[in-house]
Amino acid sequence: MKFITLVESLKKAVSLAEKATGRNLTLPILGNLLIQTEKGQLKISATDLEIGLNVYVMGKIEEDEEKTTVSAKTLNNFLTNLNEEKVSLEVKNNNLKVKSGVFEALIQGISIDDFPIIPQIKTEKYLELNIDNFIVAFGQVVNSAAIGGRPELNGVLIKFNGENLKLVATDSYRLSEKTLKADDFKTNLKDKISVICPLKTVQEVLRIAQELKGEAATVKIYIEPSQIFFDFGSLNLISRVLDGNYPDYEAIIPREFKTKLLFSRKSLIEAVKITGLFSSRINDLKLKIDPEDDKLKLEAEESGLGQGRSELKGKIEGEPLEISFNYRYLLDGLNNISSNEVFMGFNDDNSPSLIKSPEDLSYLYILMPIKI
Amino acid sequence: MKFITLVESLKKAVSLAEKATGRNLTLPILGNLLIQTEKGQLKISATDLEIGLNVYVMGKIEEDEEKTTVSAKTLNNFLTNLNEEKVSLEVKNNNLKVKSGVFEALIQGISIDDFPIIPQIKTEKYLELNIDNFIVAFGQVVNSAAIGGRPELNGVLIKFNGENLKLVATDSYRLSEKTLKADDFKTNLKDKISVICPLKTVQEVLRIAQELKGEAATVKIYIEPSQIFFDFGSLNLISRVLDGNYPDYEAIIPREFKTKLLFSRKSLIEAVKITGLFSSRINDLKLKIDPEDDKLKLEAEESGLGQGRSELKGKIEGEPLEISFNYRYLLDGLNNISSNEVFMGFNDDNSPSLIKSPEDLSYLYILMPIKI
Repeated sequence: MKFITLVESLKKAVSLAEKATGRNLTLPILGNLLIQTEKGQLKISATDLEIGLNVYVMGKIEEDEEKTTVSAKTLNNFLTNLNEEKVSLEVKNNNLKVKSGVFEALIQGISIDDFPIIPQIKTEKYLELNIDNFIVAFGQVVNSAAIGGRPELNGVLIKFNGENLKLVATDSYRLSEKTLKADDFKTNLKDKISVICPLKTVQEVLRIAQELKGEAATVKIYIEPSQIFFDFGSLNLISRVLDGNYPDYEAIIPREFKTKLLFSRKSLIEAVKITGLFSSRINDLKLKIDPEDDKLKLEAEESGLGQGRSELKGKIEGEPLEISFNYRYLLDGLNNISSNEVFMGFNDDNSPSLIKSPEDLSYLYILMPIKI
Repeated sequence: MKFITLVESLKKAVSLAEKATGRNLTLPILGNLLIQTEKGQLKISATDLEIGLNVYVMGKIEEDEEKTTVSAKTLNNFLTNLNEEKVSLEVKNNNLKVKSGVFEALIQGISIDDFPIIPQIKTEKYLELNIDNFIVAFGQVVNSAAIGGRPELNGVLIKFNGENLKLVATDSYRLSEKTLKADDFKTNLKDKISVICPLKTVQEVLRIAQELKGEAATVKIYIEPSQIFFDFGSLNLISRVLDGNYPDYEAIIPREFKTKLLFSRKSLIEAVKITGLFSSRINDLKLKIDPEDDKLKLEAEESGLGQGRSELKGKIEGEPLEISFNYRYLLDGLNNISSNEVFMGFNDDNSPSLIKSPEDLSYLYILMPIKI
């Protein structure tokens, strides 16, 4: 194989692929990239056995034969420091010769026979999202997924009900639900389908989407019972999905509230951050809601450290209430929306509360209080 | 004590002081800042028992009495998130009340009786450097100091010979020497003086100098037999110095060369970085110097990884030579100067070589080859 391309294109592709490699002492080839030509392009593949990634680079193929696998780290380090314009790659006897300007490297390869086969997808049914919408939608739910604990919560539920697309994540302390309506996405799916995509895959796909934002316009998602496939055009990624039944969460979403707040989101974030510093080990921050004066007081105290207090003005309707939250979870909810004002709805100090933008109703953040 | 100042001023001072605090499980008060008023300003002090730091903040003193010590981390975190304009500090019963806008914190203090006394300097003799020159001069030598090994090499020699000021650092593999002439600094010293300033102190002082670059114009250095004092005006720092005799290094500096090179520094840095990636565990990079063609070849090889090669054109005088270096040490030397071209002088593959700017003769980098 011999292939000539631009240093910048190869740099970006190798850097994206390197992050998908695995670290496995008993299977060191997972740290390698599979390098070959396919359909007139260079194809670089990486896998950690849970996620498989293929990235394509345009260029000029001078010879088509031979493939190899080489250390992703070595190739990436070599390219990172390179400031030349063009680079050539040549595979011979399993080794990869890289030449660019006055620089030449011969990187030792490992035969492709030892490289795991990256599965392919068979279905032709997809959901297609604009890349910016994709980033916003998955970004709003991803931090609510559980890390550890019940396996089926360690991911994001992707659920097409024949009409809407819902993304849901919960760690049982808080829950995020994003609803995309028919004009927010395209699909050739007719039947209902749902799958739990592992948290790590969602994080990886979000990172890639951020990097490809300028280049790729859309993301196509293909779902099969045991795997999910994300296609960005010049890059695609396949992942296993999580087993288990996702909990029937809809019943816990509160629809009516005894106490309702409308506050500046920015001021509330600042107050939660600063006052939360003084919260104890369970990160509890007390909210004292006073509808009489439209005042919200935040209080936290940790013995040995001290106490913090702040007071905000906003719009409050309904009954007075004292309620405590994990201030980090409260911050996540406030940061997951982007409106100037934030709506918060409460019932009592032991029932789930709701955080949402007063304008954009597609996203809900449900948060359980801490019972002290 | 009650003191009112700008959030920005206090933020900067506390952030500088926090980095000078110590982490010591048996002496947790080292993680605290001593807060008091002095000469119409707020004085914040921190120490890790090796370095003591005082930083001064201008503002309005409303009450002068009482001092306390509070957790640097807690105060710093509180201020970091604050976007208000003004802040008030009030000490009562050892606790510190911080108020700013709608935010209020009561930080628990520890009595100042447990806080170590930060030593003071008695001498009035100083060396005064412009802050930019200070950063360049110490920055050029600091990465040659040893980490571990012979204790007297774990620092920078500061030596005034009655006329010039020399800064020297070596880890016995490479050596940096910076010479400041009479018009590069001011002094009221008449006698010779020399001291070894610990590496950690130099790193800390350099970091502070970078932060204060816009505000402080000069640094005054006061030297006593057992301690050294750096005065930036609004901030000062005192440190113990290292015992032991600094090695008599001058004899090893080569003055004549059998092989002389003049190359583009930027190209050489790029080639050393890229080719050095393929060096073995001792980081050895081979230089093949060919005066006939004015060619410099760089080669490195590591079994299991591969090999790298590059070739540069420049000016070469004298005898051909093959010589190997630790490529990271070679890079340090090339990065310690800032000229477009670099001069390198060699004698044989076993003798110290010299790297310097062809224009600025105040700085020398001596590097020992690796004998393979």
